[in-house]
Amino acid sequence: MTTLSETNANSRRNIRSGGGLGYTPSVESSGDAMMRLIEELFPICRSITGNGVRKTLATLQNHITLELNEVPSGTPAFDWTVPREWNIRDAYIARQDGTRIVDFAANNLHIVQYSQPVDATMPLAALRPHLHTLPDQPDWIPYRTSYYTENWGFCLTHRQLSTLTDGLYRVVIDSDLASGHLSYGELLIPGEIDDTVLFSCHICHPSLANDNLSAIAVATMLARHLQTLRLRYSYRFLFIPGTIGSLTWLARNEDKIGRIAYGLVLSCLGDAGGMTYKQSRQGNAAIDRIVAHILGHDEVSHRIVPFVPYGYDERQFCSPGFDMPVGCLMRTPNGEYPEYHTSADNLSLLHPESLVHSFTVLRRIVAVIEANAVYRSRNPKGEPQLGRRGLYGAMGGQRTAGYDQIALLWVLNLADGRHSLLDTAERAGLPSRQSV
Amino acid sequence: MTTLSETNANSRRNIRSGGGLGYTPSVESSGDAMMRLIEELFPICRSITGNGVRKTLATLQNHITLELNEVPSGTPAFDWTVPREWNIRDAYIARQDGTRIVDFAANNLHIVQYSQPVDATMPLAALRPHLHTLPDQPDWIPYRTSYYTENWGFCLTHRQLSTLTDGLYRVVIDSDLASGHLSYGELLIPGEIDDTVLFSCHICHPSLANDNLSAIAVATMLARHLQTLRLRYSYRFLFIPGTIGSLTWLARNEDKIGRIAYGLVLSCLGDAGGMTYKQSRQGNAAIDRIVAHILGHDEVSHRIVPFVPYGYDERQFCSPGFDMPVGCLMRTPNGEYPEYHTSADNLSLLHPESLVHSFTVLRRIVAVIEANAVYRSRNPKGEPQLGRRGLYGAMGGQRTAGYDQIALLWVLNLADGRHSLLDTAERAGLPSRQSV
Amino acid sequence: MTTLSETNANSRRNIRSGGGLGYTPSVESSGDAMMRLIEELFPICRSITGNGVRKTLATLQNHITLELNEVPSGTPAFDWTVPREWNIRDAYIARQDGTRIVDFAANNLHIVQYSQPVDATMPLAALRPHLHTLPDQPDWIPYRTSYYTENWGFCLTHRQLSTLTDGLYRVVIDSDLASGHLSYGELLIPGEIDDTVLFSCHICHPSLANDNLSAIAVATMLARHLQTLRLRYSYRFLFIPGTIGSLTWLARNEDKIGRIAYGLVLSCLGDAGGMTYKQSRQGNAAIDRIVAHILGHDEVSHRIVPFVPYGYDERQFCSPGFDMPVGCLMRTPNGEYPEYHTSADNLSLLHPESLVHSFTVLRRIVAVIEANAVYRSRNPKGEPQLGRRGLYGAMGGQRTAGYDQIALLWVLNLADGRHSLLDTAERAGLPSRQSV
Repeated sequence: MTTLSETNANSRRNIRSGGGLGYTPSVESSGDAMMRLIEELFPICRSITGNGVRKTLATLQNHITLELNEVPSGTPAFDWTVPREWNIRDAYIARQDGTRIVDFAANNLHIVQYSQPVDATMPLAALRPHLHTLPDQPDWIPYRTSYYTENWGFCLTHRQLSTLTDGLYRVVIDSDLASGHLSYGELLIPGEIDDTVLFSCHICHPSLANDNLSAIAVATMLARHLQTLRLRYSYRFLFIPGTIGSLTWLARNEDKIGRIAYGLVLSCLGDAGGMTYKQSRQGNAAIDRIVAHILGHDEVSHRIVPFVPYGYDERQFCSPGFDMPVGCLMRTPNGEYPEYHTSADNLSLLHPESLVHSFTVLRRIVAVIEANAVYRSRNPKGEPQLGRRGLYGAMGGQRTAGYDQIALLWVLNLADGRHSLLDTAERAGLPSRQSV
Repeated sequence: MTTLSETNANSRRNIRSGGGLGYTPSVESSGDAMMRLIEELFPICRSITGNGVRKTLATLQNHITLELNEVPSGTPAFDWTVPREWNIRDAYIARQDGTRIVDFAANNLHIVQYSQPVDATMPLAALRPHLHTLPDQPDWIPYRTSYYTENWGFCLTHRQLSTLTDGLYRVVIDSDLASGHLSYGELLIPGEIDDTVLFSCHICHPSLANDNLSAIAVATMLARHLQTLRLRYSYRFLFIPGTIGSLTWLARNEDKIGRIAYGLVLSCLGDAGGMTYKQSRQGNAAIDRIVAHILGHDEVSHRIVPFVPYGYDERQFCSPGFDMPVGCLMRTPNGEYPEYHTSADNLSLLHPESLVHSFTVLRRIVAVIEANAVYRSRNPKGEPQLGRRGLYGAMGGQRTAGYDQIALLWVLNLADGRHSLLDTAERAGLPSRQSV
Repeated sequence: MTTLSETNANSRRNIRSGGGLGYTPSVESSGDAMMRLIEELFPICRSITGNGVRKTLATLQNHITLELNEVPSGTPAFDWTVPREWNIRDAYIARQDGTRIVDFAANNLHIVQYSQPVDATMPLAALRPHLHTLPDQPDWIPYRTSYYTENWGFCLTHRQLSTLTDGLYRVVIDSDLASGHLSYGELLIPGEIDDTVLFSCHICHPSLANDNLSAIAVATMLARHLQTLRLRYSYRFLFIPGTIGSLTWLARNEDKIGRIAYGLVLSCLGDAGGMTYKQSRQGNAAIDRIVAHILGHDEVSHRIVPFVPYGYDERQFCSPGFDMPVGCLMRTPNGEYPEYHTSADNLSLLHPESLVHSFTVLRRIVAVIEANAVYRSRNPKGEPQLGRRGLYGAMGGQRTAGYDQIALLWVLNLADGRHSLLDTAERAGLPSRQSV
């Protein structure tokens, strides 16, 4: 259950600082494999609905047997409604001579998500309110959406905007916004018991690598790995569009929510930063303690941050009517790295070793969940005589017990039917390092 | 309910460091108005009984409709008894030639409170045990009392004492110590509910400005202000002599004590120091949390100190048989500023802006008490869709939510029928800045 | 109940830093008396069984009326069994010419405890695995045991080992390992109630002074002192071999365990270091709070360390089937001073003033246990009028109450039927300094 090698606090470091982590992932979950999957998904123009989502899920199905769900537009989801489906074929701004100066084909961030169809010629003054840039990052294209307000717009670099001169521009957005479906993927890996561990990641962002292709790849490989194991808990993976996806899933699965004993929203798992765990709304749920334990004994630096009702789909899972034990595992959180929600969140931001480390942390978390039993000693009165079982040094009088011996004594001492193995590891200050 | 402007910890400062606080008090509660009231009260020779108390209460009645109470000497109050009433007309020490060298008419601190009548001529050696000075502060007159032990005495500067030569002195104290009454003022502002908020201040000190004319003035203006409002809670103001006054009030009002949901003893509210809150004996009463919240988000520095059974009338309110939720709000506490209980605690020690700030803090405390409800969301499952209600930015993808939006999300998230608005503000780390 | 002299944190110091402690122990518990007892016991070759233990107990009987217990080999004690009895008369390693180069007669640490009889001549290569030294401390003889694995061996200085040349050596161990008894001493001092305070120390170590003749001497003098007093609690002293002794006592006295309300294992009480308290497994037992209070207000530096299931007989008392409120009081703990379990843990390591200080700390702990009542005020409403009882300064207005007055006010304020005197002292931040 625990290996008891010494934790050397000095050896903690940021992934960026280099050096191998010493993990030996299987081939199918190697950093290269995850990078290949991400590279395949990167060019797809995803949104909260549409064919980009379907194509993404179809790609994941090459690795795991996802169940695909299609929910019609107009379906209610608590206070929300599944919106119309958006698809886009082409979009550009062209000069009078036909030269495309902003072209969706070049980067699908150029279009504001859910832009309505447009075909018009207009002066710059009329076009300008529909153009979005980042003056502070003049070479990056921002990512913008307008899901629930009818609008249209283009995103471009500030440098490009500054070259635009007065005059007329041709504006074309060849998009559909029509009744259709919201698509999401789901995978249940049944275990011995119905109690469930939930992993959820959002699949609605277009060409953004860390947010959230990184987590999609890690979750896919984790699901693939868990499918090969014999597990006590059941594991449910959701690949869903943000907000409306989790709301829709919750509305359709209220009967299953009570069985979710642990849950993690996964995002931003491929950058060079240390780990960040955002606690569940409960703050002291078992998942909160487990993640804190794993990260607290990990070689890589980490932060634990309290729940705030802003972020990813933990907002919905932790709404007051559900208050589920769901936290959010990230490396550098949303909004805290400069490339967030810009064209600079691209493949070059990802580190294969970060993907592998995130994957390893998740395997360790699963290992604790699987093993976190409460034991009761058969010899609770006094210590069991370890020596005659070959578990204690034969020669007495030496200075100190070794780490293995201390761990054994702690497990025996707290095997009182009240302390879990996690309780024991925490009280002993010893790491749980086993991995599934 | 909350305004969400950013708290800048760096901008916290001591009032003494200057600069305006930006409060805009109404005219009748301006610093000037409070100073004028204090100046009017300052010369009166108050004690725990007597005409000085009556004259003080009559002055307050120019501002608020105080109910006057007269309790006969000899009335029991738990382990205590209302003492004889003390009045003094004149007192002095004169040389043989009739020159008054210590004269009550010059400063009413010159007389030890409750001094018995004396008319005698005596050598310095006989007089000396009756003279009180502050050797460490040779220019200040101390304040001394002998309420419950028959005695007499004079207080003077140490410098003055050192000029006295051997010889005979005429000593005259023209005082009465006779059966009479203990006087106190009371004001109840009825609200929608009988649950009551208690504000109490002591009115027994003679010409001492910060302790406690400052709090008398602030409490008077607070009562006057609350009388103009429609309030949920009832508010009870006590203007009472220290110790015997609170004991007498408690003994006569035991039936009302259980309705007191929040209480503050007010003292020393006009000096230049930051705020000090002394917790109730309970330590975690609602009033303790509310004051800590208001001070914690205030621009002025503050301290929270635990209850100790020494200080002002919180000693009585927090005695084990009552254990009321009553703390004590001060600026610099009793005994911690050098001028305390000396003639240097005079008008020059007061700062109008400190009086106004103390008044503002109390209005904010009242605002939290009034507003501190527990809400339950009508849309507890998932977040309500704020966008279609015009409460969320239409253009998505930008870096962070603003403060107003975060506050709104917190209120919605904690509207679960278990969290009060104060709980919400504390968990969110956001200030409650509304004021009644 | 409490003396209220001020604690001066700056005056805390390590005993080693010199100066008198100002304690005035009675003659029979003076440092000299404890040193004389230790000197008498030091040469005896104790082990977990055998005549050395009997001789030790007989020596203690010169001071206290110990009940002697003899438990036959083979008696079960939970998961353990009372081992065979070991006695040794002579042991040595000699050169071919008969010169003894390692001789049990010179230091009884030279023999590995429970060594089997040997009489053989062998080359150094065969002898070498049976020789134990401390390479890092080349002049010290280690202490080694092999109670539960059949073996034999000698301990010697590393310097001595390095002089041994190849060749044949005569090896003689004249020992018995045969069915016999385990011996221990017990003393019950009955009090008014059956609730019991347990003091336990191990008596199985041979010529080691701090571990544990120091605690044996302090416990003996404490028992002797308590026998002269009229006590509320009953006090039980155990002088037992480590591990098997406590297990045997527990197995034979399960009916008494529930009455043990407080307990301390005593060890290493004579060195120059500050105090160390290792908490019970419960961590918040009354004994844990009491010892923390006494040490927290003591002049000598101290550490509180949490329970770990490694150490002395608290391992058995705090096993999950008992989980008794038993901590461990030490000065420098086992394994943390270099001389631990070596020939350097001899009489020169002990300081008479440390023994006296340890004894005084224990007397203060007993005083708190004896006095730790819960009071209820007869005048709970408001403060009692202390002035008319001569318990309050007659002249009012002075700056602060004295320490005695504050203590009195705290006791009255917390005399609510819920707070013990220890609760009161802790909340007041005032020391309990009375001693039995």
